[in-house]
Amino acid sequence: MKLLLVHGPNLNLLGNREPEKYGTLSSEEIVSDLKLQFSEHEINYYQSNNESALINTIQNSPLEYQGILINAGAFSHTSIALADAIRSINLPVVNIHITNIYQREIYRHSDLIGEACTGCIVGLGIAGYALALECLLEEISDRKN
Amino acid sequence: MKLLLVHGPNLNLLGNREPEKYGTLSSEEIVSDLKLQFSEHEINYYQSNNESALINTIQNSPLEYQGILINAGAFSHTSIALADAIRSINLPVVNIHITNIYQREIYRHSDLIGEACTGCIVGLGIAGYALALECLLEEISDRKN
Amino acid sequence: MKLLLVHGPNLNLLGNREPEKYGTLSSEEIVSDLKLQFSEHEINYYQSNNESALINTIQNSPLEYQGILINAGAFSHTSIALADAIRSINLPVVNIHITNIYQREIYRHSDLIGEACTGCIVGLGIAGYALALECLLEEISDRKN
Amino acid sequence: MKLLLVHGPNLNLLGNREPEKYGTLSSEEIVSDLKLQFSEHEINYYQSNNESALINTIQNSPLEYQGILINAGAFSHTSIALADAIRSINLPVVNIHITNIYQREIYRHSDLIGEACTGCIVGLGIAGYALALECLLEEISDRKN
Amino acid sequence: MKLLLVHGPNLNLLGNREPEKYGTLSSEEIVSDLKLQFSEHEINYYQSNNESALINTIQNSPLEYQGILINAGAFSHTSIALADAIRSINLPVVNIHITNIYQREIYRHSDLIGEACTGCIVGLGIAGYALALECLLEEISDRKN
Amino acid sequence: MKLLLVHGPNLNLLGNREPEKYGTLSSEEIVSDLKLQFSEHEINYYQSNNESALINTIQNSPLEYQGILINAGAFSHTSIALADAIRSINLPVVNIHITNIYQREIYRHSDLIGEACTGCIVGLGIAGYALALECLLEEISDRKN
Amino acid sequence: MKLLLVHGPNLNLLGNREPEKYGTLSSEEIVSDLKLQFSEHEINYYQSNNESALINTIQNSPLEYQGILINAGAFSHTSIALADAIRSINLPVVNIHITNIYQREIYRHSDLIGEACTGCIVGLGIAGYALALECLLEEISDRKN
Amino acid sequence: MKLLLVHGPNLNLLGNREPEKYGTLSSEEIVSDLKLQFSEHEINYYQSNNESALINTIQNSPLEYQGILINAGAFSHTSIALADAIRSINLPVVNIHITNIYQREIYRHSDLIGEACTGCIVGLGIAGYALALECLLEEISDRKN
Amino acid sequence: MKLLLVHGPNLNLLGNREPEKYGTLSSEEIVSDLKLQFSEHEINYYQSNNESALINTIQNSPLEYQGILINAGAFSHTSIALADAIRSINLPVVNIHITNIYQREIYRHSDLIGEACTGCIVGLGIAGYALALECLLEEISDRKN
Amino acid sequence: MKLLLVHGPNLNLLGNREPEKYGTLSSEEIVSDLKLQFSEHEINYYQSNNESALINTIQNSPLEYQGILINAGAFSHTSIALADAIRSINLPVVNIHITNIYQREIYRHSDLIGEACTGCIVGLGIAGYALALECLLEEISDRKN
Amino acid sequence: MKLLLVHGPNLNLLGNREPEKYGTLSSEEIVSDLKLQFSEHEINYYQSNNESALINTIQNSPLEYQGILINAGAFSHTSIALADAIRSINLPVVNIHITNIYQREIYRHSDLIGEACTGCIVGLGIAGYALALECLLEEISDRKN
Amino acid sequence: MKLLLVHGPNLNLLGNREPEKYGTLSSEEIVSDLKLQFSEHEINYYQSNNESALINTIQNSPLEYQGILINAGAFSHTSIALADAIRSINLPVVNIHITNIYQREIYRHSDLIGEACTGCIVGLGIAGYALALECLLEEISDRKN
Repeated sequence: MKLLLVHGPNLNLLGNREPEKYGTLSSEEIVSDLKLQFSEHEINYYQSNNESALINTIQNSPLEYQGILINAGAFSHTSIALADAIRSINLPVVNIHITNIYQREIYRHSDLIGEACTGCIVGLGIAGYALALECLLEEISDRKN
Repeated sequence: MKLLLVHGPNLNLLGNREPEKYGTLSSEEIVSDLKLQFSEHEINYYQSNNESALINTIQNSPLEYQGILINAGAFSHTSIALADAIRSINLPVVNIHITNIYQREIYRHSDLIGEACTGCIVGLGIAGYALALECLLEEISDRKN
Repeated sequence: MKLLLVHGPNLNLLGNREPEKYGTLSSEEIVSDLKLQFSEHEINYYQSNNESALINTIQNSPLEYQGILINAGAFSHTSIALADAIRSINLPVVNIHITNIYQREIYRHSDLIGEACTGCIVGLGIAGYALALECLLEEISDRKN
Repeated sequence: MKLLLVHGPNLNLLGNREPEKYGTLSSEEIVSDLKLQFSEHEINYYQSNNESALINTIQNSPLEYQGILINAGAFSHTSIALADAIRSINLPVVNIHITNIYQREIYRHSDLIGEACTGCIVGLGIAGYALALECLLEEISDRKN
Repeated sequence: MKLLLVHGPNLNLLGNREPEKYGTLSSEEIVSDLKLQFSEHEINYYQSNNESALINTIQNSPLEYQGILINAGAFSHTSIALADAIRSINLPVVNIHITNIYQREIYRHSDLIGEACTGCIVGLGIAGYALALECLLEEISDRKN
Repeated sequence: MKLLLVHGPNLNLLGNREPEKYGTLSSEEIVSDLKLQFSEHEINYYQSNNESALINTIQNSPLEYQGILINAGAFSHTSIALADAIRSINLPVVNIHITNIYQREIYRHSDLIGEACTGCIVGLGIAGYALALECLLEEISDRKN
Repeated sequence: MKLLLVHGPNLNLLGNREPEKYGTLSSEEIVSDLKLQFSEHEINYYQSNNESALINTIQNSPLEYQGILINAGAFSHTSIALADAIRSINLPVVNIHITNIYQREIYRHSDLIGEACTGCIVGLGIAGYALALECLLEEISDRKN
Repeated sequence: MKLLLVHGPNLNLLGNREPEKYGTLSSEEIVSDLKLQFSEHEINYYQSNNESALINTIQNSPLEYQGILINAGAFSHTSIALADAIRSINLPVVNIHITNIYQREIYRHSDLIGEACTGCIVGLGIAGYALALECLLEEISDRKN
Repeated sequence: MKLLLVHGPNLNLLGNREPEKYGTLSSEEIVSDLKLQFSEHEINYYQSNNESALINTIQNSPLEYQGILINAGAFSHTSIALADAIRSINLPVVNIHITNIYQREIYRHSDLIGEACTGCIVGLGIAGYALALECLLEEISDRKN
Repeated sequence: MKLLLVHGPNLNLLGNREPEKYGTLSSEEIVSDLKLQFSEHEINYYQSNNESALINTIQNSPLEYQGILINAGAFSHTSIALADAIRSINLPVVNIHITNIYQREIYRHSDLIGEACTGCIVGLGIAGYALALECLLEEISDRKN
Repeated sequence: MKLLLVHGPNLNLLGNREPEKYGTLSSEEIVSDLKLQFSEHEINYYQSNNESALINTIQNSPLEYQGILINAGAFSHTSIALADAIRSINLPVVNIHITNIYQREIYRHSDLIGEACTGCIVGLGIAGYALALECLLEEISDRKN
Repeated sequence: MKLLLVHGPNLNLLGNREPEKYGTLSSEEIVSDLKLQFSEHEINYYQSNNESALINTIQNSPLEYQGILINAGAFSHTSIALADAIRSINLPVVNIHITNIYQREIYRHSDLIGEACTGCIVGLGIAGYALALECLLEEISDRKN
């Protein structure tokens, strides 16, 4: 299976930015851990602070991938356009938040991206990535049947 | 590890109630699947339509369990008391919704229980249970270190 | 036909509590009047101040009853769980309020139970019970055809 | 007893308009059914799409009628003037909605007319008319005592 | 000067309807009192429960009148169309409420008609009419200069 | 094709009322321009300040017309009854506003009529009428196929 | 009769401050005009920018006055304390606004003082003072009977 | 005098749960302190996490008690049914919160139980219990006179 | 101990103003009762209708007093400045309302002063003063330890 | 005349994405149809998922174009910056939505772009493009005069 | 140039009150620093906890000063009267907040005073005063030209 | 010191766009004025209409700069992602608005960027830039100590 992990704005800083909140692992380390753990699959990684680059990536993903894992960062709360891109493709997409957004500022409680995805994993830290990937694989295999 | 799966109101009907939304597996089948998959752990199951029975169960859980998985059903959106019980114990609690609550009625969008838990798994169907259990185990082992 | 009249919290006080508002008839008198008036049917009565007892009663009702009449009292305005139980069964349920809830406190204007029922009878006093029962019978016979 | 059934805007289309929602009976058939069922009473029928015609009818009704049954259609949600007319007369008025307004658009949830009436019958379909008439008769006889 | 007093819905009942709130004088008595008090002016009276009749009257008023006194009753709170009619003519219009609308139901607090008029007299009872007429005359004479 | 242009309250004043906002053409001139431009079709014109007259006109239109163009004026923001009439007929209806309602008072931003129509043309001035008619013709021909 | 005219904050600037909105007459000129026009009564004037001075004045007024005319300026929209003072005395109080507050900023639409008074005169300019005084005199004489 | 102290959900954990917020005294110690301090009265204690058990206790209290002291915990913010039970009995009920609810989460600011009680003591810690009891005794003696 | 009782606007009228709501005791009588009851302490009294006088008194209080009892009247709902003054001193302050503010107008439900104080006593009538004083003394002695 | 058609995010998918909602024509086909229909004008097409690319295009358009047609997709509901760009140029801009946004999710009801444009065409499907272009041409010729 | 620095409620405590938030400099030290830094100008200082004293000071300022610097403390969020006073004079007024009000309680986010001033300096600590003074001087010189 | 001035969308038009509101100076002129005035510092300028370019610039700034001055234009009101970027770096950032946003459309009143910055300068026109730079320098020197 070929899968894509998509990271939104400021997630390129993972590991350095507020590590007590987001953990000390960088995105690269998260990805290489996932590759190790899911070595039978091909996992690509794409990060951008650019909403349109993320939209393009989502739009083009069905040509190459069977499923997507997305942590859209702050765009989760503001980008209808990115959510529409997810709705426009016919792929399972699992949404992930490292922190529990319900315990943060009120403007982080709504989740436009989560509404457009198959499901969400929220507040389970870096460990959530492997779980989300598992669930993405299950969703893909469910849809096949 | 001894773990508890807690189900709130109407989840005793799982498998029969709107199966196109909640799947065709009964709670008992979910639990026995989990027991098979996580055979090195002891997994107990408790369901009640009674808010106070759920509160009592949560309050007493630290005597017997190392972690809790909860799907509080409709109480997720109304019970501050159950959320307070979760906050009052010193155990990792992972929250799970079978359906994507963001795609349903507006009064199911808020999640008082999710706010009180470590994290949430939303909309991933029955497959979410095994993932939530994995993540609960990881959270328990994280807290030990 | 076997029918169930369900009463929610504080309705056990009917006849004593604010009689200028709720009338002077007790629940028992209402029930025996209904039994007289609808003597060709079997009418059972269940009252509880306990949300879960009400949920259980609703869940189990299809085994025994062809239709339900419910006055959920204050739970009308707060219990999504009870409304979900009504939605989970395949029986006609008619909702009844003795007083005109639109003329009372603002937090009694919303009606979560009414939204889940076939229909509602509001503000017609004790007389509403017999009418609701008639309409329940009609709904049952409609569904048969 | 002389009674009046009042129908608001678009209810002249009853039977033709969205019959899966409003039933296949025309207003005339509803009225003749009521006349048959309540043959000891005189039942008149008045429909208008005109708010002021409805207000005038309500204002003049005490000269001729002992009670009123009203389905104000869309005016239920917008006409304070019609509700004031109901409040200005000293007759029992029962409010009726064919559909369950709580299950429809948000702007149909408020009921200005219902607030001004003795009581409401909501969502019980065409069967609600006969029930409402019964309850109106009961209310009239109650007030006499 | 030729002036018009316009009364909206249900104000034809003045004197009979809730006299403790609206006084015991009928509209006719109010008008003949005004005619006595302001005998040097011609005062006409128009009442309708019909929004469009009121709009037409307002639209045509500049042909015949120098100023308007309006108590639009319940339309004060709902009719943008009537307010637009007032805005479309080039005459001074004074708005009057017999009762203090700020002490009544919340949906009577907003005043769409008042927003479109030169000014408002609120809560001064029947006495407000003569005052409003005086002020209307003054406004007319002001505009002349 | 036989088409109807419907104008709501205060649009009889077109050409005289705030010409810098609504233009200097009267309704009659607009209609005769349309007749010239669309001479192969029969175009009728109906204006009323009366909500019920508009509702009646809409209800009866399918007997005579293939499509409707409506500028409901202030009723756009308040009349659920008129919107329901549009929903009750099986004709294409195109909604038109001369001014850009989004740049005006907040209570002119919502558009109940627009929600019930096929589509809307907003803020394009008098020129919008011919365009709306074109689009109405296209919609009619689309539905035929 | 001994009457008091009370002016709230910034009304000492009347005549100088935005004369196109508030007119060119100073408070002193308004008062002397009133004295001339109502020479059979004793009219005192009190202005303060100080909420407590206004409260004290209102509290003490029954010892000396038979009625009060108040333009509370910006305190109309913020001072529950001043409104409570008005409610605590047993005197008729008429409220006056020079401008039409419904045509100004949204935070000037609510009127806490108006809610506590007998009635209000709004938007009639300086001419409103004499009218308000007349109506105050009438209210006083009404209460005597 | 026979008095009842009622504790709602999670208050059985008092002394152990977040002691820096709720103090280190257990409910039992609070009760025995009260018994010592008010030894001339009989003080009973009832705690439940169960809404219906609390409702039943309140409903039955007039048979045995002269007054009630209630800390309903999280039910203070959600239970209309419990508030109705308090309103249904004819006993003085004093409401108590250990912490200052105005300094906590927004959903703890409203107090449905407080609205139904005679009065409230908020944020005075464990010391509030003795004070509330004193005030309850005073209220009882007031009502006797 | 030297303590200060602070009264806000209109509380100088206590005993005369709406005695069925606020009781028949004047502030002076309340104070002399408190002095009798707490004769081992020095109790001073300060009332003002002036927000700044109250702020000054609060600011200066630490020089002379060990604790404050405040009933800020209507300022409870509007004065952030007075609440800030309370927050700026390092003294225990207990807030008191004679009536149950939750049963009054909606704009009396919020309590800015209560949020800034240690705790509140609400709706217990004049009896609340002695209780509040007791609790203030306890709070002072708590802080000493 | 040289004109520009601007398409916002996800409109590159037109024809493939939910064709029952957006039609089966691709953007390229729409453009070539427009070019055929308006062959006397030069029509360019620009699509981007990138907000800043759209802003740049709008800013630079006056150098090359006489008018703009824009369908900003999801940015219609979120981009103040794009609306500001439209406001910053001195060109007629007509806004177009293929679907009736009033019949979709609540967050698609507001239209920031529509507020900044000359006018809007909403819900008329692909046919709306030619109409919008006509109206744009008319607006351009109007401005010239 | 003669300039005035105005301080609102509780700012007399500057230097002592929560120094980690407001700094350790007293108002006097701030003023003498400003006098040193701007020795070519005359800078006066006025502080009051009294809203009316502040209003009076603002109203009188044009007689003596060329510009005003104001930190209205808590009155920034509540006093329309003070904002009106600022609007009533023809002097440049610069508003200053020591802390970043957007990072504090929700009721400190609105700024009635800021809306009435030329501009605002927010969250720059004590250093903001000198900057605000510079900008005030520039604004004064701008207005001269 | 090396400092960066960041400009958001549409600020490249400064000097041309609505000069009565934003002044006649171009960004380049503002920058060269700042360079002259602060010649002992190195000041760089970066403008983009692209949110991600702004985020990247902010993220990379600590490598090169000691402080940032930002006017994010319309992104001030919509971009949580840009605000998060500011929060993710450890540099003083001062926020600047040329116009007084409180006097503009309601959707320009909130300031997400301002919440994330050290402080804000609002409404002081172009003069605000030099002041903001001064204050930025002071903040930098404060943090060093």
